[in-house]
Amino acid sequence: MPQLRQDLVTQRWVAIATERAKRPSSFSRAAGVAVTPAATCPFCLGHESMTPPEVMAYRAPGTEPNTPGWDIRVVPNLYPAFGPADVEPIVSRDGPYATMTGVGVHEVLVSSPSHGDDFAQLSVAQIAKIVRAFIDRYEAHRDNPAIQYMLIINNHGKEAGASLEHPHSQLFGIPLVPISVREEIDGVRRYRTERGGCAYCEILSAEQSAKARIIAENDDFLIYAPFASRTPFEASILPRWHSARFEEMNAAQQGSFASALHDLTARIFHGLNDPPYNFYIHTAPVHQDGDVDYHWHLEILPKLAIAAGFELGTGLMINVATPEAAAEYLRGVDLSATAPTGASPAVH
Amino acid sequence: MPQLRQDLVTQRWVAIATERAKRPSSFSRAAGVAVTPAATCPFCLGHESMTPPEVMAYRAPGTEPNTPGWDIRVVPNLYPAFGPADVEPIVSRDGPYATMTGVGVHEVLVSSPSHGDDFAQLSVAQIAKIVRAFIDRYEAHRDNPAIQYMLIINNHGKEAGASLEHPHSQLFGIPLVPISVREEIDGVRRYRTERGGCAYCEILSAEQSAKARIIAENDDFLIYAPFASRTPFEASILPRWHSARFEEMNAAQQGSFASALHDLTARIFHGLNDPPYNFYIHTAPVHQDGDVDYHWHLEILPKLAIAAGFELGTGLMINVATPEAAAEYLRGVDLSATAPTGASPAVH
Repeated sequence: MPQLRQDLVTQRWVAIATERAKRPSSFSRAAGVAVTPAATCPFCLGHESMTPPEVMAYRAPGTEPNTPGWDIRVVPNLYPAFGPADVEPIVSRDGPYATMTGVGVHEVLVSSPSHGDDFAQLSVAQIAKIVRAFIDRYEAHRDNPAIQYMLIINNHGKEAGASLEHPHSQLFGIPLVPISVREEIDGVRRYRTERGGCAYCEILSAEQSAKARIIAENDDFLIYAPFASRTPFEASILPRWHSARFEEMNAAQQGSFASALHDLTARIFHGLNDPPYNFYIHTAPVHQDGDVDYHWHLEILPKLAIAAGFELGTGLMINVATPEAAAEYLRGVDLSATAPTGASPAVH
Repeated sequence: MPQLRQDLVTQRWVAIATERAKRPSSFSRAAGVAVTPAATCPFCLGHESMTPPEVMAYRAPGTEPNTPGWDIRVVPNLYPAFGPADVEPIVSRDGPYATMTGVGVHEVLVSSPSHGDDFAQLSVAQIAKIVRAFIDRYEAHRDNPAIQYMLIINNHGKEAGASLEHPHSQLFGIPLVPISVREEIDGVRRYRTERGGCAYCEILSAEQSAKARIIAENDDFLIYAPFASRTPFEASILPRWHSARFEEMNAAQQGSFASALHDLTARIFHGLNDPPYNFYIHTAPVHQDGDVDYHWHLEILPKLAIAAGFELGTGLMINVATPEAAAEYLRGVDLSATAPTGASPAVH
């Protein structure tokens, strides 16, 4: 089972994922990342036996699990960073150090049967199915007492850590609330105490007034470059309504979110020549009794810069592009010639 | 002047380094990083006029500044991320957001006149000169009231963010104490309050007992893979004596540190086929009245894994190699056939 270890000084946790361990010598620089050709891709139609059995799929009536006929397919990660989830995490000591068993879930959500189409190419209708599947898997795990937090992420491109080319997202259930989310929840609490109101609602208001960092918007979401963007072309999708939980979106909101996600990824794809990127969804921790004061959102980070010694040593990112210039550039990308059928109707 | 911006929610700062800004379209994926050939390298002997005028050099008697004859040469960074340092930082507001002028210093320390030799190839004597130069530049800036923290870093290899091939380190003076250092200082305070003693001294003791994570050692320094290593082959060089300040080493300790740094970088170079890496030195903030409770050290992170969506979204690193396996591997690298004259005599 993977193991979590806590730094004695900073109290930050690290996951040592022994399930994925390689021989130390294999880290030698010559060992590159192999890109899976479509013919041997475990996520392509007809290759269902190449993955662990599916835990969920949206499929045509009458088709059998683990056969073709699916639109969306969710399988356990073959090399899970966390798991299994049917036991409580065990905290123990190794000398002065704290450890925790790396219980949890690690699932892969295949975006579509198409090997080549990612968010920028998929229809908004297909992206809406992906969003619904995110929520379905979220709900499948959220009552598990071993899981404290669930994170949905997407890695696009080899340089952003995608080890398989076929577009897919990943869903992690982990036995602690991660520091990045705790920092945001603490920040929301501090802002409300010191200045009043929700910090994210204040951002919505400030960005609407300033306009300079808006990339696109629709009735339900603002797409913008954050004032303190950490990397060139960082962007956020923020719901206009105050809600702690991604997973509580209704069907109309899910469709609107799918439209916003398509719009943003298409601007990045066409404007920046298909750069690698990572996105993740920050929602409230599971197992909150009553309401938690938070405002969920999606953050996307194109991988156009390298976090080097300064950033690693300080935690302070140096960004060589202003968010205002990045937003202006992405705002100007013309999607009219490139949008697939059904794309971005609600985004103006 | 570069600008610091604070995230409204997390209160983390980001530096927007407008001095290095590119046109947004130049981030398009096709634009690669050019490697400077030696013939046009601004850090090679005889090319002194290609850099800003030197602020310090160790040179042969009778040679003129900005001409050949130097062993070590320090110049301002041509595209500084922070600067200048002759004004106080100004904190202001942009709507609800906080900003600060990015005052400070950003210098480049050229490791030697040789275009191809990095720490693994340089003699311990040359590395000792580099260490002395780090301290000299540290002392040149530490009394500047605009500077709250000084960080020394080294990026090795293009994938680790080195934009010029000729080995060099960088010295940053910045107008705030960065979060990574604050976390460590807070951790030392918490450890002393809750458990007693210095957390880093406890690590020295625990690692000596466990032995499994020791990579090498000498009379003054322990070189080890941290228990909660964030990446494969992460390593630290930790002084055996309790001291908050790197810059207070005496000459013998500087030589011993140079020997440890040579030993560790040579093991990484030969054992892992010259991977890219970043290292930085964590020392106490400047401008402390009286003593600060801290224990300085060097951290090195070979770039053998990608921080992807999970790590970016959580702040929780997934490490696919155990520190014990990494330490065993690096401990076993045979340096006897590869060490240059004078290398590692004190490391056993």
